[in-house]
Amino acid sequence: MKACIAYAPGTVANLVCGFDILGLCLDSPADKMEVRLLDTAEIIIKSADGYPLPEDPALNTAGAPLLEMLQDLDQKVGFEIIIHKRIKPGSGIGSSAASAAGAVAAANYLLGSPFDKVQQIQYAMAGEKVASGVKHADNVAPCIYGGITLIRSIAPLDVIPLAAPDLYVSVVHPQIEVRTADARAILRQQVPLKNAIKQWGNIAGLVTGILKNDLPLIGRSLEDHIIEPVRSTLIPGFQELKKSCKEAGALGGGISGSGPSIFMLSSSRQTAQAIEGIMQETYKNLGIDYHSYVSMINKEGVRIEPLNNSSR
Amino acid sequence: MKACIAYAPGTVANLVCGFDILGLCLDSPADKMEVRLLDTAEIIIKSADGYPLPEDPALNTAGAPLLEMLQDLDQKVGFEIIIHKRIKPGSGIGSSAASAAGAVAAANYLLGSPFDKVQQIQYAMAGEKVASGVKHADNVAPCIYGGITLIRSIAPLDVIPLAAPDLYVSVVHPQIEVRTADARAILRQQVPLKNAIKQWGNIAGLVTGILKNDLPLIGRSLEDHIIEPVRSTLIPGFQELKKSCKEAGALGGGISGSGPSIFMLSSSRQTAQAIEGIMQETYKNLGIDYHSYVSMINKEGVRIEPLNNSSR
Repeated sequence: MKACIAYAPGTVANLVCGFDILGLCLDSPADKMEVRLLDTAEIIIKSADGYPLPEDPALNTAGAPLLEMLQDLDQKVGFEIIIHKRIKPGSGIGSSAASAAGAVAAANYLLGSPFDKVQQIQYAMAGEKVASGVKHADNVAPCIYGGITLIRSIAPLDVIPLAAPDLYVSVVHPQIEVRTADARAILRQQVPLKNAIKQWGNIAGLVTGILKNDLPLIGRSLEDHIIEPVRSTLIPGFQELKKSCKEAGALGGGISGSGPSIFMLSSSRQTAQAIEGIMQETYKNLGIDYHSYVSMINKEGVRIEPLNNSSR
Repeated sequence: MKACIAYAPGTVANLVCGFDILGLCLDSPADKMEVRLLDTAEIIIKSADGYPLPEDPALNTAGAPLLEMLQDLDQKVGFEIIIHKRIKPGSGIGSSAASAAGAVAAANYLLGSPFDKVQQIQYAMAGEKVASGVKHADNVAPCIYGGITLIRSIAPLDVIPLAAPDLYVSVVHPQIEVRTADARAILRQQVPLKNAIKQWGNIAGLVTGILKNDLPLIGRSLEDHIIEPVRSTLIPGFQELKKSCKEAGALGGGISGSGPSIFMLSSSRQTAQAIEGIMQETYKNLGIDYHSYVSMINKEGVRIEPLNNSSR
């Protein structure tokens, strides 16, 4: 049967002041998924690396979107998905979104591309619902489109791909658990109007900086007066690390998704690597295990490679 | 002595979701100001049309900025300003900003242009302080720059001129009084996080639409979930008028500044004129006097014309 490999990259959602509306796509890490078209109406999920992923498709972030897709198809088809999980679940860099977006993009490819990117995002959001209980798009949208995407509205879904500036992203994932539900529960449900105004000034500045490739403006706009002051309390070392990274030349950054990963943007690979060094040093000193990455902003999103007629 | 005329146009601040951060410049109406350089360190203010403007420069929106400017100059100079007030004070389309920005731009011209636009905005903000007690920039910035401007931050001042899309603006000024202080006092000081998120999605969409000249996106983004629901209660007919204007083809719009003027954006002069007709009809039916205007978005801001050596 027809088959392909999908490379589904990590993503950074909640881009500082752009809580719930802005996300960017990383080059690495990326999940690798082997996807085969079946002539039976079923979804088969396998974990290649012994990661304890749910194999019931309705409970799996890659499976749930495809179950929705199958309902919309006239053909009797199904998919087998073997997931090489490279983005650690719970890291805050879009692990569930990568599985969902990778599965949807691969299925779309194997079916002859009947779905546009917005429809693919809508299916992939079903995977986010399985993972966190909320159908959000700020990871799956940049994973499908690449670059930096704006989710102006969820209902109706209005996604606008902005641009993919030549920026480098340093990410550190301290090995602590921050549950998405806790990170949501800690937020205040009312925010002071004066802080909301500062926030929307910064969002407008950040979007302008991204579209005009104005790096100093991006840097000045990477301020979050609402979410970060609350959520950063869940991440040891956050404030000091952020200060050190900016002193070392990072444009700015913050909490990736709902954490615990932290990301910083830089205009050169050299700076981004120095920032990664500071991140490693910080968590070494705190005695907390970590993973760290340096990546460009990914311009294409999920990448599909055809697999030759595979008998396996 | 050297003299010039400044044409200082009206402006629309609080651009729907862009409360306190986005403003646009109108072509008309515009104040006309005759400004003369004096060799004495004094500011003389005269109203040409019998408008009861304060003649004490410290209390006048055109005078206060120039008093600040004089303190920064090494030369012993002053200015005489004759104001032909064409933008009615209290209309909500930047009457005080026009006086302030026009005076500053004219003085800068007469001095040989020592101040850049950001410095001019900073002086002009002193006029806003006289008018409303608050040093805001979302009228004076578009008045100085033209087009649509973003005020990312007031302290430190960070103004970013965005673009001047080819849009038409219909404005109606119902002759009712909405005091800026009341319009401020009525606002809730805490806003629900979920509305704040909708608002910043729309701000990001609006800025993207302005920069990419994507008119449907501008239209979809012209939604205000925070300020308009509260302030529109001060303006009779607002909700019905907005609905009728959108049905007649306006991209969208809202309260200009803190009101009572209402503005609507359209992609053609024909639509903008039809919208003006609906505005007129609405206030005729309500038995409220009004002024109305149709204007393009002004691309240059305050316009200076030199006056030949004037002996008067």
